[in-house]
Amino acid sequence: MLKIGIIGATGYTGLELLRLLQRHPAAEIAWLTSENSAGQRFGAAFAVPPPIGEHTLVKLADADLAAADVVFCCLPHAASQAPVAAARAAGARVIDLSADYRLHDPAVYEAWYNHPHEQTALLAEAVYGLPELYRPEIARAALVANPGCYPTSVILGLAPLARCGWLAGTIIADSKSGVSGAGRTPTLKTHFVEASENFSPYNIGRVHRHLVEMEQELRLAEGAAQNGWQLIFSPHLLPVNRGILSTIYVNLPAGVTEAQVREQYADAYRAEPFVNLLPAGQVATLAHTVHTNYIAIALTFVPNTQTLIVTASIDNLVKGASGQAIQNLNIMHGLDERMGLL
Amino acid sequence: MLKIGIIGATGYTGLELLRLLQRHPAAEIAWLTSENSAGQRFGAAFAVPPPIGEHTLVKLADADLAAADVVFCCLPHAASQAPVAAARAAGARVIDLSADYRLHDPAVYEAWYNHPHEQTALLAEAVYGLPELYRPEIARAALVANPGCYPTSVILGLAPLARCGWLAGTIIADSKSGVSGAGRTPTLKTHFVEASENFSPYNIGRVHRHLVEMEQELRLAEGAAQNGWQLIFSPHLLPVNRGILSTIYVNLPAGVTEAQVREQYADAYRAEPFVNLLPAGQVATLAHTVHTNYIAIALTFVPNTQTLIVTASIDNLVKGASGQAIQNLNIMHGLDERMGLL
Amino acid sequence: MLKIGIIGATGYTGLELLRLLQRHPAAEIAWLTSENSAGQRFGAAFAVPPPIGEHTLVKLADADLAAADVVFCCLPHAASQAPVAAARAAGARVIDLSADYRLHDPAVYEAWYNHPHEQTALLAEAVYGLPELYRPEIARAALVANPGCYPTSVILGLAPLARCGWLAGTIIADSKSGVSGAGRTPTLKTHFVEASENFSPYNIGRVHRHLVEMEQELRLAEGAAQNGWQLIFSPHLLPVNRGILSTIYVNLPAGVTEAQVREQYADAYRAEPFVNLLPAGQVATLAHTVHTNYIAIALTFVPNTQTLIVTASIDNLVKGASGQAIQNLNIMHGLDERMGLL
Amino acid sequence: MLKIGIIGATGYTGLELLRLLQRHPAAEIAWLTSENSAGQRFGAAFAVPPPIGEHTLVKLADADLAAADVVFCCLPHAASQAPVAAARAAGARVIDLSADYRLHDPAVYEAWYNHPHEQTALLAEAVYGLPELYRPEIARAALVANPGCYPTSVILGLAPLARCGWLAGTIIADSKSGVSGAGRTPTLKTHFVEASENFSPYNIGRVHRHLVEMEQELRLAEGAAQNGWQLIFSPHLLPVNRGILSTIYVNLPAGVTEAQVREQYADAYRAEPFVNLLPAGQVATLAHTVHTNYIAIALTFVPNTQTLIVTASIDNLVKGASGQAIQNLNIMHGLDERMGLL
Repeated sequence: MLKIGIIGATGYTGLELLRLLQRHPAAEIAWLTSENSAGQRFGAAFAVPPPIGEHTLVKLADADLAAADVVFCCLPHAASQAPVAAARAAGARVIDLSADYRLHDPAVYEAWYNHPHEQTALLAEAVYGLPELYRPEIARAALVANPGCYPTSVILGLAPLARCGWLAGTIIADSKSGVSGAGRTPTLKTHFVEASENFSPYNIGRVHRHLVEMEQELRLAEGAAQNGWQLIFSPHLLPVNRGILSTIYVNLPAGVTEAQVREQYADAYRAEPFVNLLPAGQVATLAHTVHTNYIAIALTFVPNTQTLIVTASIDNLVKGASGQAIQNLNIMHGLDERMGLL
Repeated sequence: MLKIGIIGATGYTGLELLRLLQRHPAAEIAWLTSENSAGQRFGAAFAVPPPIGEHTLVKLADADLAAADVVFCCLPHAASQAPVAAARAAGARVIDLSADYRLHDPAVYEAWYNHPHEQTALLAEAVYGLPELYRPEIARAALVANPGCYPTSVILGLAPLARCGWLAGTIIADSKSGVSGAGRTPTLKTHFVEASENFSPYNIGRVHRHLVEMEQELRLAEGAAQNGWQLIFSPHLLPVNRGILSTIYVNLPAGVTEAQVREQYADAYRAEPFVNLLPAGQVATLAHTVHTNYIAIALTFVPNTQTLIVTASIDNLVKGASGQAIQNLNIMHGLDERMGLL
Repeated sequence: MLKIGIIGATGYTGLELLRLLQRHPAAEIAWLTSENSAGQRFGAAFAVPPPIGEHTLVKLADADLAAADVVFCCLPHAASQAPVAAARAAGARVIDLSADYRLHDPAVYEAWYNHPHEQTALLAEAVYGLPELYRPEIARAALVANPGCYPTSVILGLAPLARCGWLAGTIIADSKSGVSGAGRTPTLKTHFVEASENFSPYNIGRVHRHLVEMEQELRLAEGAAQNGWQLIFSPHLLPVNRGILSTIYVNLPAGVTEAQVREQYADAYRAEPFVNLLPAGQVATLAHTVHTNYIAIALTFVPNTQTLIVTASIDNLVKGASGQAIQNLNIMHGLDERMGLL
Repeated sequence: MLKIGIIGATGYTGLELLRLLQRHPAAEIAWLTSENSAGQRFGAAFAVPPPIGEHTLVKLADADLAAADVVFCCLPHAASQAPVAAARAAGARVIDLSADYRLHDPAVYEAWYNHPHEQTALLAEAVYGLPELYRPEIARAALVANPGCYPTSVILGLAPLARCGWLAGTIIADSKSGVSGAGRTPTLKTHFVEASENFSPYNIGRVHRHLVEMEQELRLAEGAAQNGWQLIFSPHLLPVNRGILSTIYVNLPAGVTEAQVREQYADAYRAEPFVNLLPAGQVATLAHTVHTNYIAIALTFVPNTQTLIVTASIDNLVKGASGQAIQNLNIMHGLDERMGLL
């Protein structure tokens, strides 16, 4: 049995990890940390069933890091840098759900997160944990940087195009996320009365931090021949608990046909256990993916144009966070990639 | 034109007052206060249309109390005592939406609100602002204590029985309220992710403060001959923005018939402009009343028993707060009671 | 591996069965029926992940009944009588999710369901599938009548009292259910615009069919010494997808103490794998149980009275239907009762 | 007092008209028609307050067309053609809320609505009822074709650009609408359980009928010098009752600056009573407009690009339908345009 430690377990990604790990036949909880709720049972933080609720929370300083084979770190960005390093130093393999180890260039990280990167050696060895792109690297990684929720939907929605060099011009990713994506700290924006019966764009105009993560990975997927495309990413707050739908608009280069594009997507995702490439005529909806680890991807070609509309849906807490983290765990340990995730 | 001042305008009851007053042909805003947002436009606090948004907020200390004919006080309990007294001293008639002037006995107030009453002379002259019970007293009142939202639904749901001495035994008021009833301060309980797709009882078992307000008014409606009934009040948090539905269970005394009860309700409410007494066979729902100043009341008699189920629905922000406050304003000034409220 | 047939698979209980069975290590789908969607893939009826979506639907007449070890019947009441008999005749053990085999007395069934019972011999052998009450009988049953959703919450909420003879007087069960309880057929009442931001009582006043099911089981739990209590059951439609919360009011007999009651509940449910008896001071909420097979039960005693408020929460599609059906499947086959349900 | 007739009053636009007209000091209801509910009170169709509920519904054949000064027609497309002609023949001025009289070219109408236009003479005289574009024409119109909900948001969001000839290339209108936009007929798509906690694109890829309406008006606003732009319109179903948010992406021609664009919008909308042009730095949200007749428009310029993101929000039942219809009524009769709409 793999011994699991979770740092910062009392947020929504921590809760989702516990729910999923409960069903995982090859993993068991070693310890859970919470600085604010240390000494309490996990059930004091969440209305969860008894088996999950019985775990006791400890402060990170009191956690036996060496007792964990794998550590999931669920802290916010910047706060994750040091604990990840400590867990690595104690010998655990680490899956970090924050943004701290996702951007390969520490200068880019600092520019977008307003915080210097203080673990650049670790950063250099971190693997971006998107199994559909980096399965072999994840299998041997000691530190996996679990992707952001929005980037998971957009990168997987565009990767087959990027690999062919078919990204061009201005690409629009109009994304909509459920409120759990904003975390568990109460704010006016996430107050029920403000969010319910409402719908709001926010951080539009190339200012949301996930943009740079998308660009990094799409450029890498493109390889050497960089085209001059740019990505406009517009997040919106959706009055649902879970789920992201990205509606992505791409102007395909002249001559690229629907049949070619469909073939590329089919080839890219045929063997993927968690990509549900929908047949022509369908669109992705949240219902396709909430409470599952799947991404649903659909391709709609606008007649008489070169415009492709990609709709891509995930559950932000599962494929967009904790489910993907467990998928990475399985890959790292040679387990069936679907273990605990069906 | 009546000049209106609003103390503590940046909560949901303040917003609802502004929305309603905008349509009121005999009232205009003199000033609005907010300690936290003073100096800003009202539109900085809420996404409201321009005419409402243009008002500028001031600190209470900077408001020209004497420039207002009527002051609405929208502060929390305890915080309202002194500002109400100041507004009265400046000559304004006051409608207080807090609990501070609703309970006639200062000892009861202190016991339930954990705060002494420091304005007992003013308290003695305050009129409980439920038009269906106290219309003549409201008309000549200088200080009106606007009823609580839950009490409005329960008191009007039971008053015809109380007047006949037909309250008896254990009366259950199982009430459900939308989240705006909890105010605008973000909390974990009112965080979208926690409240949506959820439903929770809270403060059940005779511990919610609105219970004592209901009991005071039902005892007064009963008059001299007090029966030995007790009220169990169980509030629940409903995942909607607005609306209260109270499902009230009464065991009628032996011999009291359905026909008699229907006649009493019909007599009590026939002339009431904002009571919608539903015909037999119907039940009250939130849809009957949200965004209106009506209370909908329906009577369901359980066959072969003496059990009466009263369903009573209001919009907690309108009939349960700001709409009723304007109804009181109209009564106090001899205006058509429905002015601005249709 | 147990071979599973599902009759009427394209409703919400069928979908939930498939979701849960996908995780069940000892069961596999033999066939799924749908009269309207026969010939299509299950994924044409629901936006589900590929593994579930790949099953092909057949007409009941084309299903190989003998190929199933266990048949779940998910048809509406009255429609289930004959298919259940056919499945039994073919040798399968049957778990019926309709009301057709729940009421022991065919005359009572006919009076409440306006339809004669045409399988009275089968009815006589059916076991009411509430594991907490009938585990040994379920273990050897050939036909299990899976309980209704509302009854599951109310019966388990009151059974420990019934066994002690502590039910008395008028008992109020004020229940609230998410919309999936109304099934998948679109109606005006369940149209999004009518149900969202709304909350409605319906069928109150001892007219809902689930009442008679609750009474049957509580009388049986009471045993010989029948007290003169009556149950008032008031269902309400809650604007959530899933979940039932029942708030139940009982006037305990004089002399029965809080400590005694708590002890009875603790004894009754200590060993139950899916009963989450909450500690004193807590109340049950939907969040305790949605997407799980648990029932959460909390006891609140009203000070200075004999009134006990039981709050009981379940997911209507899991513990209230398909999860409980799988719990019964496990019991019937000597499997770990929790298999596939954590 | 203007006498008002409403054809097809029992849908959501009919209900909204009645709510708004109740507050309108210069209009009164003459008759309401419903083929399905004729003979019943309006309150039998909707849980509305008594004053609205008391109106009796009649069949269209029984309505005294000549008794109405103004007729609002709230029937579906195709069904409106003949009743509108009948009302015109009886001498009433007509405001049609369907699509039947919006498209100037009957061939285009037939191509998109799969139904021939049988009232081409009337069609030729109809005025497109968007006050911000056609106020003088509306003032003297006998027949006003009230705009569609999505087109109102997109046309007003882009009209200032069109007039300047600044539309170019591929314009993306990614629109999201509340469920009331789909009407009151229950369908699986609008069933609460399917729509709640879900979010779905539909009719994407230049197939939604509102696209042609947007193009007609934007081409007309552009005038003679037609640029070669095309519009991609992607509607999505949002789990809210009311409200449309359109996020519109435009690549401005080289050399057009933010300052120029802001000036054009300010000029276009400065005097408009129901356009809320938000200051730089803000975005439009549903909260800005629901339950009001306003459109909120915000402009976000993506740094270092020529990409402009227009966010435009309306209440689909108010500015997107019944409120705009009353705005047109006011303009047609020389009343204050805001009458009944604040």
